[in-house]
Amino acid sequence: QSCCGIDNLIDQKIQAAVQSAVSAVTSKAQLICLNVSSRGADVSCPSGYKATSCACGMACGSWDIRGESGCHCQCSGIDWTSARCCKVGLNG
Amino acid sequence: QSCCGIDNLIDQKIQAAVQSAVSAVTSKAQLICLNVSSRGADVSCPSGYKATSCACGMACGSWDIRGESGCHCQCSGIDWTSARCCKVGLNG
Amino acid sequence: QSCCGIDNLIDQKIQAAVQSAVSAVTSKAQLICLNVSSRGADVSCPSGYKATSCACGMACGSWDIRGESGCHCQCSGIDWTSARCCKVGLNG
Repeated sequence: QSCCGIDNLIDQKIQAAVQSAVSAVTSKAQLICLNVSSRGADVSCPSGYKATSCACGMACGSWDIRGESGCHCQCSGIDWTSARCCKVGLNG
Repeated sequence: QSCCGIDNLIDQKIQAAVQSAVSAVTSKAQLICLNVSSRGADVSCPSGYKATSCACGMACGSWDIRGESGCHCQCSGIDWTSARCCKVGLNG
Repeated sequence: QSCCGIDNLIDQKIQAAVQSAVSAVTSKAQLICLNVSSRGADVSCPSGYKATSCACGMACGSWDIRGESGCHCQCSGIDWTSARCCKVGLNG
């Protein structure tokens, strides 16, 4: 194989390695979610997670997300609050 | 080009290919979401999706996510339940 | 180093560069979220974001997501509507 062919050889090697890494990453990248709940009107997601929504006791649909991960239920006399917490991560 | 220059040449080729793959992946990686709803108090996201939140009929804000993708509305006499379902994917 | 060893050298270089790019991307990939709210029964996420959930005034838990990013609260006399808006992005 003449020396100038090495250029193509290198390019092919690089593309093959990059493509396989890209498909490995994209097939493993996913949304990792968990639920946290607590008595009262407030609960927070664990570090690294963001709240994507909140649920409340007493049928209450009025809530807000404080900071990136805190759920607060606004109705009076709330008995429990839960947060749906998600992050992007690699599976396996 | 002397043989020892080949080292730099290879490095440059590799970096260029890797950078272009990284920007391709990052520009295409996105949150892909859909809604599913059903009569009654329960509904599940399709395979591969995770529930990020639930909504309920009867103005009910008390719900929970079961497993990774199941929405359950807790109030009595629930007429419909919906789930917001998301995953990480590549666009196009 | 004999010429045939160059093959391994190239492979090692490629793998090292690809691995470092993969770990850089995966450590920076994250869920980027924000809240938007508005008076009345409708609000939409900014471009590039998807709604992962909605919250409503009047303790209302009945809402739906329209298009990819619009929140609509269904109860009557809704005073405010908020959307939790998220996307996949690179941090830093």
